[in-house]
Amino acid sequence: MSAAPDLTAADTVASVPTVPVLPGFDDVLAAAARIAPHVHHTPVLRSRSLDALAGCELYFKAEHLQRVGAFKFRGACNAVWSLPHATAVRGVVTHSSGNHGAALALAARTRGIPCHVVVPENAVAAKVAAIRDSGATLHYCAPTIAAREAMCAQVQADTGAELVHPYTDPRVIAGQGTAALELLGHAPQLDVLITPLGGGGLLGGSAIAAAGVSPGTRVFGAEPAGAADAFQSLQRGERVTELVPDTICDGLRGLLGAPNFALLRQHRVEVLLADDADTLSALRLFWQRTKQLIEPSSAVALAAVLGHRERFAGRRVGVVLSGGNVDLEALAEMFARG
Amino acid sequence: MSAAPDLTAADTVASVPTVPVLPGFDDVLAAAARIAPHVHHTPVLRSRSLDALAGCELYFKAEHLQRVGAFKFRGACNAVWSLPHATAVRGVVTHSSGNHGAALALAARTRGIPCHVVVPENAVAAKVAAIRDSGATLHYCAPTIAAREAMCAQVQADTGAELVHPYTDPRVIAGQGTAALELLGHAPQLDVLITPLGGGGLLGGSAIAAAGVSPGTRVFGAEPAGAADAFQSLQRGERVTELVPDTICDGLRGLLGAPNFALLRQHRVEVLLADDADTLSALRLFWQRTKQLIEPSSAVALAAVLGHRERFAGRRVGVVLSGGNVDLEALAEMFARG
Repeated sequence: MSAAPDLTAADTVASVPTVPVLPGFDDVLAAAARIAPHVHHTPVLRSRSLDALAGCELYFKAEHLQRVGAFKFRGACNAVWSLPHATAVRGVVTHSSGNHGAALALAARTRGIPCHVVVPENAVAAKVAAIRDSGATLHYCAPTIAAREAMCAQVQADTGAELVHPYTDPRVIAGQGTAALELLGHAPQLDVLITPLGGGGLLGGSAIAAAGVSPGTRVFGAEPAGAADAFQSLQRGERVTELVPDTICDGLRGLLGAPNFALLRQHRVEVLLADDADTLSALRLFWQRTKQLIEPSSAVALAAVLGHRERFAGRRVGVVLSGGNVDLEALAEMFARG
Repeated sequence: MSAAPDLTAADTVASVPTVPVLPGFDDVLAAAARIAPHVHHTPVLRSRSLDALAGCELYFKAEHLQRVGAFKFRGACNAVWSLPHATAVRGVVTHSSGNHGAALALAARTRGIPCHVVVPENAVAAKVAAIRDSGATLHYCAPTIAAREAMCAQVQADTGAELVHPYTDPRVIAGQGTAALELLGHAPQLDVLITPLGGGGLLGGSAIAAAGVSPGTRVFGAEPAGAADAFQSLQRGERVTELVPDTICDGLRGLLGAPNFALLRQHRVEVLLADDADTLSALRLFWQRTKQLIEPSSAVALAAVLGHRERFAGRRVGVVLSGGNVDLEALAEMFARG
């Protein structure tokens, strides 16, 4: 397996002029130190029976056991604790009603600063309640991207809060990279590192971490076949922005961000696809064998490994399990359908 | 809270003449040493949010992470490794198509001896496959108790295999007690220890362990309201044997065994009931907060704690999570029904 290219952030900025700032390995190291007092150092899980089924050695980084139930807390925490005091006191704002919203709300609470979350009027009540429980102020808007961005701008204008995007913010990307940093430290000499791929925050940060600490490790993203914009973007050499995602992996419906695209190209990350049926099978298999409640957006990575056995045979494969916030009603319907 | 009575096994045998042998604390200690090379020393889990909800300190013994996905492996392993060589080589036999069957099959494999499991013709295919995968020989019979016992006797006559009952066998009871022994060593000075209650193997063994190592710990059983034969037995002072269980807790449908009844009385164990709706709520709550996939038969213990908050307020409460072998189809239906 070939080593990841040894480009510096400066090289990258020069070669991808549309992206102003890409985080580098130093940023991931700084993030790890900054968030250490607040995040869980999650365990790395092994399973003899899954190893036997996959034909390789699997090392699962258990971010479903992270605070808020997802790796998202790492990036949100790094963004919040990166702010200078004068900025921090005005608070943070985002427009995610999913894991990032809850993660930013809890991260803000660890620093005692305000958090504003813009949510569409049709957001799932349970998710909104989780965000409110973490102490965030909710701002409802119409369920369109335009309304969401307008409301975000309004909140910024009114409060001076700092916008923290769920996956294009370089502080968030650097924070997400700390999960892979821990995994590569715990299970050294991994041949392969694979993470789920939605907007590309986790994968981009993981690629930076691997290049810095283990350049011989080949990095892969696992993307739902029904939301394959990153796969297509890398094939075409330009970012696909018109795709309408259709997948059970609710955490992976976001389109690849511009800095994330640049990072994937910089680190020669390869994208593997898994369709939802295979992801659901992998989810059940993982539940049954490990008794760990991961969400479909996590299982896509295991599905990709099982779907490409020949690529990974006999290898040491690190898998980042991104989270465990399962929508039980939706899953019950899927299981009932078979 | 009162201490458990300090009776010896000999006293008990004298006072309950219908029960030939009850295991004692020495048997639990011997079991712990005997099975140590084969079982997982499972972790004890904590959850700040569940503590806050319950109003007490909860220490969860994670037997869903035990081999075979259930504490049952402990008792089966102790029975298998207790056998003298001349008996062991003839193998073991049981008539459980659930966790005990799979546990005995794997335990026999750890010693390299034959295992025979009698299963009814209508047993769930997935469970039968799990038992076969562990290397056991299957013997099908008609789905009646008479047919099951006849087939077991036939296998014993044909092979000389040793019968290992899922919860009345004293070697099994002693083995099941090792989970509580570990929990009480890991989280000392527990005020309360609570385990799920079906046939009474786990609870009986736990009561013995607590009396031996932590006599100030009060022991409770959590029983489904739809299978409350143990609750009724203790109230009446005689074992109820005519009850037809109706509960989602598939691991707790067995009726309390005779030696188990004697142990519960000896150790003044109290039984708390939880109805299935509360157990299902506790299951969802535990899944959501800990991302650990426990089965309904485990969640009944948390449901009992949450249903009796006033009894446990401010206490240190140990909970044995008995297993994680979830029937996803059945659960999906329950969740879909609400």
